[in-house]
Amino acid sequence: MESQTKTYSKLSGIIPPMITPLLGSDKLDTIGVRNLVEHLIKGGVSGIFILGTTGETQHLSIKLREELIRETCQAVDGRLPVLVGITDTSMSESLYLANVAAECKANALVAAPPYYFALGQPELYEYYQALSEKCPLPLYLYNMPSHTKVMIEPDTVKRLSELPNIVGLKDSSANGVYFHKLLHIMKDDPDFALFVGPEEMMASVVLMGADGGVTGGANLYPELFVDLYNAAAAKDLNKIAELQEKVMQVGEALYGIGRFGSSYIKGLKTALALKGICCDSLAQPFNTFQMPEKQKVQVALMQLETLLKN
Amino acid sequence: MESQTKTYSKLSGIIPPMITPLLGSDKLDTIGVRNLVEHLIKGGVSGIFILGTTGETQHLSIKLREELIRETCQAVDGRLPVLVGITDTSMSESLYLANVAAECKANALVAAPPYYFALGQPELYEYYQALSEKCPLPLYLYNMPSHTKVMIEPDTVKRLSELPNIVGLKDSSANGVYFHKLLHIMKDDPDFALFVGPEEMMASVVLMGADGGVTGGANLYPELFVDLYNAAAAKDLNKIAELQEKVMQVGEALYGIGRFGSSYIKGLKTALALKGICCDSLAQPFNTFQMPEKQKVQVALMQLETLLKN
Amino acid sequence: MESQTKTYSKLSGIIPPMITPLLGSDKLDTIGVRNLVEHLIKGGVSGIFILGTTGETQHLSIKLREELIRETCQAVDGRLPVLVGITDTSMSESLYLANVAAECKANALVAAPPYYFALGQPELYEYYQALSEKCPLPLYLYNMPSHTKVMIEPDTVKRLSELPNIVGLKDSSANGVYFHKLLHIMKDDPDFALFVGPEEMMASVVLMGADGGVTGGANLYPELFVDLYNAAAAKDLNKIAELQEKVMQVGEALYGIGRFGSSYIKGLKTALALKGICCDSLAQPFNTFQMPEKQKVQVALMQLETLLKN
Amino acid sequence: MESQTKTYSKLSGIIPPMITPLLGSDKLDTIGVRNLVEHLIKGGVSGIFILGTTGETQHLSIKLREELIRETCQAVDGRLPVLVGITDTSMSESLYLANVAAECKANALVAAPPYYFALGQPELYEYYQALSEKCPLPLYLYNMPSHTKVMIEPDTVKRLSELPNIVGLKDSSANGVYFHKLLHIMKDDPDFALFVGPEEMMASVVLMGADGGVTGGANLYPELFVDLYNAAAAKDLNKIAELQEKVMQVGEALYGIGRFGSSYIKGLKTALALKGICCDSLAQPFNTFQMPEKQKVQVALMQLETLLKN
Repeated sequence: MESQTKTYSKLSGIIPPMITPLLGSDKLDTIGVRNLVEHLIKGGVSGIFILGTTGETQHLSIKLREELIRETCQAVDGRLPVLVGITDTSMSESLYLANVAAECKANALVAAPPYYFALGQPELYEYYQALSEKCPLPLYLYNMPSHTKVMIEPDTVKRLSELPNIVGLKDSSANGVYFHKLLHIMKDDPDFALFVGPEEMMASVVLMGADGGVTGGANLYPELFVDLYNAAAAKDLNKIAELQEKVMQVGEALYGIGRFGSSYIKGLKTALALKGICCDSLAQPFNTFQMPEKQKVQVALMQLETLLKN
Repeated sequence: MESQTKTYSKLSGIIPPMITPLLGSDKLDTIGVRNLVEHLIKGGVSGIFILGTTGETQHLSIKLREELIRETCQAVDGRLPVLVGITDTSMSESLYLANVAAECKANALVAAPPYYFALGQPELYEYYQALSEKCPLPLYLYNMPSHTKVMIEPDTVKRLSELPNIVGLKDSSANGVYFHKLLHIMKDDPDFALFVGPEEMMASVVLMGADGGVTGGANLYPELFVDLYNAAAAKDLNKIAELQEKVMQVGEALYGIGRFGSSYIKGLKTALALKGICCDSLAQPFNTFQMPEKQKVQVALMQLETLLKN
Repeated sequence: MESQTKTYSKLSGIIPPMITPLLGSDKLDTIGVRNLVEHLIKGGVSGIFILGTTGETQHLSIKLREELIRETCQAVDGRLPVLVGITDTSMSESLYLANVAAECKANALVAAPPYYFALGQPELYEYYQALSEKCPLPLYLYNMPSHTKVMIEPDTVKRLSELPNIVGLKDSSANGVYFHKLLHIMKDDPDFALFVGPEEMMASVVLMGADGGVTGGANLYPELFVDLYNAAAAKDLNKIAELQEKVMQVGEALYGIGRFGSSYIKGLKTALALKGICCDSLAQPFNTFQMPEKQKVQVALMQLETLLKN
Repeated sequence: MESQTKTYSKLSGIIPPMITPLLGSDKLDTIGVRNLVEHLIKGGVSGIFILGTTGETQHLSIKLREELIRETCQAVDGRLPVLVGITDTSMSESLYLANVAAECKANALVAAPPYYFALGQPELYEYYQALSEKCPLPLYLYNMPSHTKVMIEPDTVKRLSELPNIVGLKDSSANGVYFHKLLHIMKDDPDFALFVGPEEMMASVVLMGADGGVTGGANLYPELFVDLYNAAAAKDLNKIAELQEKVMQVGEALYGIGRFGSSYIKGLKTALALKGICCDSLAQPFNTFQMPEKQKVQVALMQLETLLKN
């Protein structure tokens, strides 16, 4: 098992948390999946992460999640690493999805803690230990305390990183102290990958040593985020300043329309639909934007496209 | 649809949130299910609620949940109403379970809000509206904010109660102000049932007009809880004082061993195993008690049985 | 010290958490204090609690708090016990106020935990131990987790109750499980008084053994709350049902206007001003209601007075 | 008023949140204040911030806070800007302290939101508007949601920044998304200063445009933090990597001893006492470290001094 890990090469760069293209609440938009995969590959991303929070995973049936894994892996066809979210409150369902992912030749798995009962740190360690032992692919931890009600504390991450099949972590806590503690505590383990979720923080943590971003906005404008990552990796601070400003404007224009908790996903899906890439349906209990919000997205998109051309 | 509801007669009394007897993490203890059902029926309960929080539902695969519905309904065989929890983040999976329940001739469904994304009140209303329209059986709301991160506010309950297929609510918030607001706001709708989860509060809210309790301890000592409910319904305050004291001692002795978040479920399952009713396995990520904790449960049980005989 | 405590006779009944009549943000309405004290005494309350949450204490300067203690004690003039809130993040200021209270012949002190840093249970024990040792009057604990970010756990209450100068607790958590655990854990200490804050829960917990209520609505309608307490103490369940309904209507009509966090205090103060008892000013950062809200209070008051006459 | 602001020149760099040297719970260590001020000035800091969270302000009496203002301003004697925390739940007390600060020729004021009642955003705006109008010195906002239960949202900051007397913000939320939104929303107002509290994040946000850090560790090792700030301001990424590592080791060694909420302050005070700078007393309810913890601090200090020499 140990040797297997050593052969897994660490990822870096932008790995978009792919939205799930849907034709209806629990019906996959398979053409949308293909279009979106092409859009992302053309945009220069380093991998694709399906079935995360941005993918509305918890609102999808296990069957639809399975279908999405199959369709995405087929569409990607080995051109890029595919990371598959297996987060679920039932370990059986997580392992079922893990096996589907392996069968479809995905490259890695990603799991947030169970999110109904909040686990303590010792239980969290045991959970990931048990999960990783049964996972047929390398596993990334996914820290997402606003949804799971628990942080995977730095000490727990450190201990988990010593298990052969755990290869990295994605942090969506937005907590800068936490992320810098991770960078510090993991500094002697260069094979362990640290990705950040919130796009607003990506450049600054890559400057400090992070491996990349799992940034939602990269669904829409993959090149912009790849360019910002590259500038941060190259420590080109002038370029960062210019591109960071554009990234902030994307979020400001698109993620707060309607002021729902789900505005961010709705904004992204509506924008992708307006660009002809995929359908804008959401899984229940979220609803697609109504016409007034759609028009706001359209206006925002036009302004952003002008901005991004410069 | 409207007429169907009118024919559903309101429940009252003690409806235990049944623990899920397991032989292993995702393997049902079918003999345990039968034994436990007989134990509960013999104890005089008014119904059985499966697949709630005490049932470790979120840690069970959909397949095991389905199996539990079938086994329980078969074991009960129409002697009592069976209420089936369909809480899930995916509405498709909730409806799948709802249909299994209807097919097995269960009597009603129970659903807490989706628990990954926390919904606002308008979204919560729409969620329950959509769910209840597609449910083949009457639906109970399940307020469980510590796990779902949202309260179903009294105004939302009032609006939802006007839908034809929503017949009651179980509140596990432990919030006494909330529960008394529900009693007040629903006072002109005598068909809407209000049950409380925490057993410590049961007698006091039944005195004030609640319909009963979905009390975890009734898995172990159903008669005790039925007696306390009956005393409260009969407004026999001396009897209440005597039995409430016993209920408090059960919790004090059994629910805090080991000081895990899951101590309450572990204590109940270990005690039921020691009484020969079912196996003490828990679904991952929870673990069965080790020997020192089991011995504490055994000592507690012996003291409680002496107490309850008097 | 121990003997001193034994001579303090336990309180019971309704002890209103008095609003602080103000002429401006930090200027006491001394005529209002006198009127309000007479209104409360005429209403049959068992004591008066000044400088609690309803009294906007944290928004008042130490100097104004001192003035309020002096004016209230003078106005009450020994006719009733006066309880003085000394809650502060600085123990020096708490003790200063405690000494003012003793000098003015107040009867007891009330203190919630410090509320900037949230203390752990051992620190909380030490805090109250140190405070009570230096307090010249008996001390009540005040559990108020929504403001202080910490519960005084039942085990901590039990340990603190063994100190000679700690004589009771007021619980404003609204947590019914917590309150019933207190009733259980303190059942062998009949001298320790347990009061509940939220008026919606008062009757139900008095039925189960609580000593009374520190209910905000009693500022406005003291007789109503005294009658409800008396009915609960006499276990007259028909009377309780009738009066509980009226109490719920008071809150429904008055506490939600404008939907601020401070609506409850604003509603009470505006109603008292409309009844000619005291001025309706609030301490900054809260603002007095504007005309549209005042008119809503006036309409509500008229309906309530009709209701209460029946 | 507007013109006055224009003459206030924006601060940048390291402004330590000074611990409050105490001889006992509410007794100032005036020699310690002088020693510490010299230590900080020698360390090259850009200003000194007294009466923040690290200063245990809420646990100090108003009288002691006043004494600290006088002693610090006298000790600094105009060599550096002094920023004075006036955070209090009572606006009268805040303004009293603000006037003491002005009289002592301090340079600016700092205020977190009131922390007993949590205010909504409109109330927060009004609070700061009223406060700043009456403040005789420029005012910094202080975002500290873990203690105050409320974020000062970016839109509220933007609106407040347009008031003449509000000149900057210190953010101690640790939320990287929030801080980058502030950098973005305030980018067209170069006179508005943005400081970060947590030292772990300081270099990364200064790289992205922040003005400096109000970093607790700078009490102990001011040069280290000044050097790190200078490296970040100069965008010297190799130097940053080297110094950031040292900063992380300081925190790892000193801030978690004993695992109290207050370990960070206790570690700093004990270390300063061991270096002979000031006494290690804390204000109640916090306690000074016992001998075993003191010895751990001593060992940590020796290792850190070796590390910092290299």
